Amino acid sequence: MSIIVQKYGGTSVADSEKIKNVAKSVIKEQKNGKKVVVVVSAMGHTTDYLVKLAGEITAKPSCREMDMLLSTGEQVSIALLAMAIQEAGCDAISLVAGQVGIITESIHSKARIVDIKTDTLNKHLDNNKIIVVAGFQGVTPDKEITTLGRGGSDTSAVALAAALKAERCDIYTDVDGVYTADPRIVKDASRLDVISYMEMLELARVGANVLHPRAVETAKQFNVPLRVRSTFKQQDLGTLVIGAESMELYKAVSGVAADDEQVRLAILGVPDTPGSAAKIFGTLAKNNVSVDMIIQSYVQEVNANNIAFTVTESDFDNAVKILENVKKEIGATEIVIDKDVVKVSIVGAGMIDRPGIAAEMFEALANEDINIKMIATSEIKISCLVERGRENDAVKAIHKKFDLGEEDVRADKIAK
Amino acid sequence: MSIIVQKYGGTSVADSEKIKNVAKSVIKEQKNGKKVVVVVSAMGHTTDYLVKLAGEITAKPSCREMDMLLSTGEQVSIALLAMAIQEAGCDAISLVAGQVGIITESIHSKARIVDIKTDTLNKHLDNNKIIVVAGFQGVTPDKEITTLGRGGSDTSAVALAAALKAERCDIYTDVDGVYTADPRIVKDASRLDVISYMEMLELARVGANVLHPRAVETAKQFNVPLRVRSTFKQQDLGTLVIGAESMELYKAVSGVAADDEQVRLAILGVPDTPGSAAKIFGTLAKNNVSVDMIIQSYVQEVNANNIAFTVTESDFDNAVKILENVKKEIGATEIVIDKDVVKVSIVGAGMIDRPGIAAEMFEALANEDINIKMIATSEIKISCLVERGRENDAVKAIHKKFDLGEEDVRADKIAK
Repeated sequence: MSIIVQKYGGTSVADSEKIKNVAKSVIKEQKNGKKVVVVVSAMGHTTDYLVKLAGEITAKPSCREMDMLLSTGEQVSIALLAMAIQEAGCDAISLVAGQVGIITESIHSKARIVDIKTDTLNKHLDNNKIIVVAGFQGVTPDKEITTLGRGGSDTSAVALAAALKAERCDIYTDVDGVYTADPRIVKDASRLDVISYMEMLELARVGANVLHPRAVETAKQFNVPLRVRSTFKQQDLGTLVIGAESMELYKAVSGVAADDEQVRLAILGVPDTPGSAAKIFGTLAKNNVSVDMIIQSYVQEVNANNIAFTVTESDFDNAVKILENVKKEIGATEIVIDKDVVKVSIVGAGMIDRPGIAAEMFEALANEDINIKMIATSEIKISCLVERGRENDAVKAIHKKFDLGEEDVRADKIAK
Repeated sequence: MSIIVQKYGGTSVADSEKIKNVAKSVIKEQKNGKKVVVVVSAMGHTTDYLVKLAGEITAKPSCREMDMLLSTGEQVSIALLAMAIQEAGCDAISLVAGQVGIITESIHSKARIVDIKTDTLNKHLDNNKIIVVAGFQGVTPDKEITTLGRGGSDTSAVALAAALKAERCDIYTDVDGVYTADPRIVKDASRLDVISYMEMLELARVGANVLHPRAVETAKQFNVPLRVRSTFKQQDLGTLVIGAESMELYKAVSGVAADDEQVRLAILGVPDTPGSAAKIFGTLAKNNVSVDMIIQSYVQEVNANNIAFTVTESDFDNAVKILENVKKEIGATEIVIDKDVVKVSIVGAGMIDRPGIAAEMFEALANEDINIKMIATSEIKISCLVERGRENDAVKAIHKKFDLGEEDVRADKIAK
């Protein structure tokens, strides 16, 4: 009998009525002849409430105690959902991470899962129990409670599916799938029935907040089929996220998305000597500043390089401080900052070896008179930094350019 | 360096300001040169809120899932208190029962502690950390989360003090000690500076809701000195509860209390044959009905016994059902019930071998024209069942009779 892992987010378990509905959905899967493991997040605004409580005590709570505090949110949800399933007449048991054995690194507030024990899970599944597991949390080998950070519950679900060799992991959320663009911006954005891990990963990274990249990465690594579907429209199959081998080969562009949490930094006059770039990005990395786009250009007149890159807004202050030091150390001349940017990206596994795609994207932006401040490309993604305020125009123009709103024309378009 | 265990109830940690005050009180103890372990309950009405949530899901939640749910309340409190202590500049760490190793029986909702591991506690204490432990909860050897039931947090604190061979266990609460009677009933009730475990135990059982009998029993068993004191009047030393050997010998009556949760049952015409009483009380015990006072009287005319006893109101329906069956089985004639009763008791280690005390109590009641429906005595307690509605008059009269309101006269009174 195959195993299905389901994951429900905080809005899906926001109150007791919603929890009862989730119970029905879980039981329905079991009645379909599956063994079911359910992962849930904290109810609605529970986490916000707990963060507020901590804020009343201290401005700088220790990460360890925050994990202790926040992990209670999921524990409440799993107990209530297990009760709801039992009330509906089925056998269920709730388990916190420590009981399952969701082992993480010994890092608080953003631990990564290193192992999941399956003995306890399999024992309960063999007894026909529906298992309700607390998402977002883990435990270290010495019993410390950790949390997984952003995207934690999605990652818990995918990792459990991988460990249990589940048939599929269904991520139930408040949207009904993955779209070619944000439907709030682009009216005729169309939903994708299927998308590859790689494309989903790039879309997730550039701001389509349906699935956290960590969860997608884990699914990709262990080849766990994911389904993104709506808690409130259960009959709807949503979007299936799977390996590329099953994908339509000619789809060059799967989607377009904007990410407005990026800030641009540039360090000018970096001496053209080996190690300068390593010094800059090594120091940033050591201080936990993640860097996204990087561009380096050589300025012949002064025999030096200008290096530009983007960081998230939350890392900005820290990054500037670090850069000021590095600037002196390596003898660079100036630091330039630009907060007035948004990153717009297109993603598609089919764009590999099709350089025309980039040109089409730039053309779409040019036609709208949108200036491109920076460009970065990967094999399946092209990102442009545009000025803040124009991102919606950019997304709409690109979406139209690649006919993403029309059904079944994409392949033709690219093949023409 | 000796260890002090402190325990704070839900009202003491009801909001962030109160939690900060508790942090100050904890730190003060450490500054006095003690190693400190703090046990806290769930904040204010958290438990009620969680019970309400469960009630919205099901009328009969499983005990296992209720334990999973309710144990989160204490986990929130310990994290917040640890943060507050850290914010005040001291090193602190919060631990749930599973992390400490507070091992209980595998029974949910009313587990008893069977062992407490001290390795983790001693390691943190040796590193000068203040340890904040979740009260009310335990863990079974197979990692199931249990709760200890009524009086749980008090019991957690005392058991920790016993395991750590602490110098003392301070129970901080919203009253400032143990009184000779309920100060809300008897205006000149006086506070006891010191009381023995045995007396405290009897007082606790008869309705002086300051300390749960389980906690007192545990303290007695391991000879842990307890101090009952006020969270809000820290300079006040409250009441010390210790072994009898340190007690003033001549104190015949330490206090008087009323318990209005008792109901009287009588089974009449019980054949005077061996085994009848065993059958009655054995069957009740097997069905988890606790029996308090028991009286048996022989009625010569019918060569049969009348057996009367009291149970708590919550056990009443169950007890009557059981008795109906037992009545047929043993051939008794009738069951009589009386819900209109309150148990009034006096407690005092000095009443042993002083039969005059009982007479004085009965006289006090007679003077107030209060009828006594049933009497039961132990070596240090005398209880009378009086009619409901007269209990306050009874308590006042007895309090006055034994001069409990006056300082330092009790010993004289008894010695006269």
